[in-house]
Amino acid sequence: MAIARSRRIRRYARWDTVIARMSADEPQIQSAFAKRTRLRWIDVEELSLLPSGTLGRVFADHLTVNGLNPNLIDIPVEDDGSYFLAHLYETHDIWHVVSGCGTDEAGEFAVGGFYAAQTEAPFFAFLLGLVFFNTAFSKPEQFRERMEGLARGFLAGRRAQPFFGTDWAALWDVPIETVRRDLGVDANPAYAGDGIRKAA
Amino acid sequence: MAIARSRRIRRYARWDTVIARMSADEPQIQSAFAKRTRLRWIDVEELSLLPSGTLGRVFADHLTVNGLNPNLIDIPVEDDGSYFLAHLYETHDIWHVVSGCGTDEAGEFAVGGFYAAQTEAPFFAFLLGLVFFNTAFSKPEQFRERMEGLARGFLAGRRAQPFFGTDWAALWDVPIETVRRDLGVDANPAYAGDGIRKAA
Repeated sequence: MAIARSRRIRRYARWDTVIARMSADEPQIQSAFAKRTRLRWIDVEELSLLPSGTLGRVFADHLTVNGLNPNLIDIPVEDDGSYFLAHLYETHDIWHVVSGCGTDEAGEFAVGGFYAAQTEAPFFAFLLGLVFFNTAFSKPEQFRERMEGLARGFLAGRRAQPFFGTDWAALWDVPIETVRRDLGVDANPAYAGDGIRKAA
Repeated sequence: MAIARSRRIRRYARWDTVIARMSADEPQIQSAFAKRTRLRWIDVEELSLLPSGTLGRVFADHLTVNGLNPNLIDIPVEDDGSYFLAHLYETHDIWHVVSGCGTDEAGEFAVGGFYAAQTEAPFFAFLLGLVFFNTAFSKPEQFRERMEGLARGFLAGRRAQPFFGTDWAALWDVPIETVRRDLGVDANPAYAGDGIRKAA
């Protein structure tokens, strides 16, 4: 995240433009920025007791299977730009689960494409620039998988309703199929890579 | 094209790996590299006399509508890498027409995605790195259109048969619908942007 705070990147990140565009006609996003709603502490053990197929249970299983801790980093929020990144960062694993993108290479690029589609933030274009240089010079054998994930994730993100600002904690006991349907995501999404179907 | 010839880029371009992967189980591509087949001089006036709907006629109309000269640059071929780029370069406008990608921003990115899918060449990952930095720092308002084109073009390129090494000059009088069908392209492709439907 340090790179996002550097002065040069912040100048080009144009958070005000990004936020204005994302918020237009989207009360949920307007409200998120107004209140700077944060994800509350996540009790994974409690979520894992929820009925099978609920968002909370699928999320808890996903965290357990992948050895992830959702409460690891507390990101300070000072302004709209840092709120934007903090919100995306702390909900990253939820986006994985709801969008159906796995944690393999293709899945991470799919989530990246999802971000690009739903935010159109130049910061993600900058990250893609770094990523494609890395692909060209260090990981050419990953080019197809990365592109495949990015392309599928981007188009899925375009089709879906905005994820940003969703009060996920209010949806833990809702069946994930309902959450996906309401957000315009396929019932059994399989954009690229392994997906999260095994955990779900 | 100068950038593709620089020593540093050539070292990372790994043409031998790219060509080996593209050629595997693809006699058409093997033959193209063996013979280094070039596109012959294109007589646009002659093509424009072909029946409506043939590849040659659609191509000629496309060139005329867009003010393009298909014989502008003769690229010297010294080795497999320069043949690869020369072949792509001189058939670029044909790829546009057959894939159905327009010459607007989204269409150019769609052709780029098509190249990436069909060649998996690190050189295109390098170009994408440049392009996304350009997007982040100079053209943030183009991010969506560029990603949309890239994503749709990439997935279309994955679905299609290999374009590389096709003897296009032998197909001028074939209906473009047949050419597209044989190559696994939609009959009326509309990946992104304007497409070439107007010219077709």
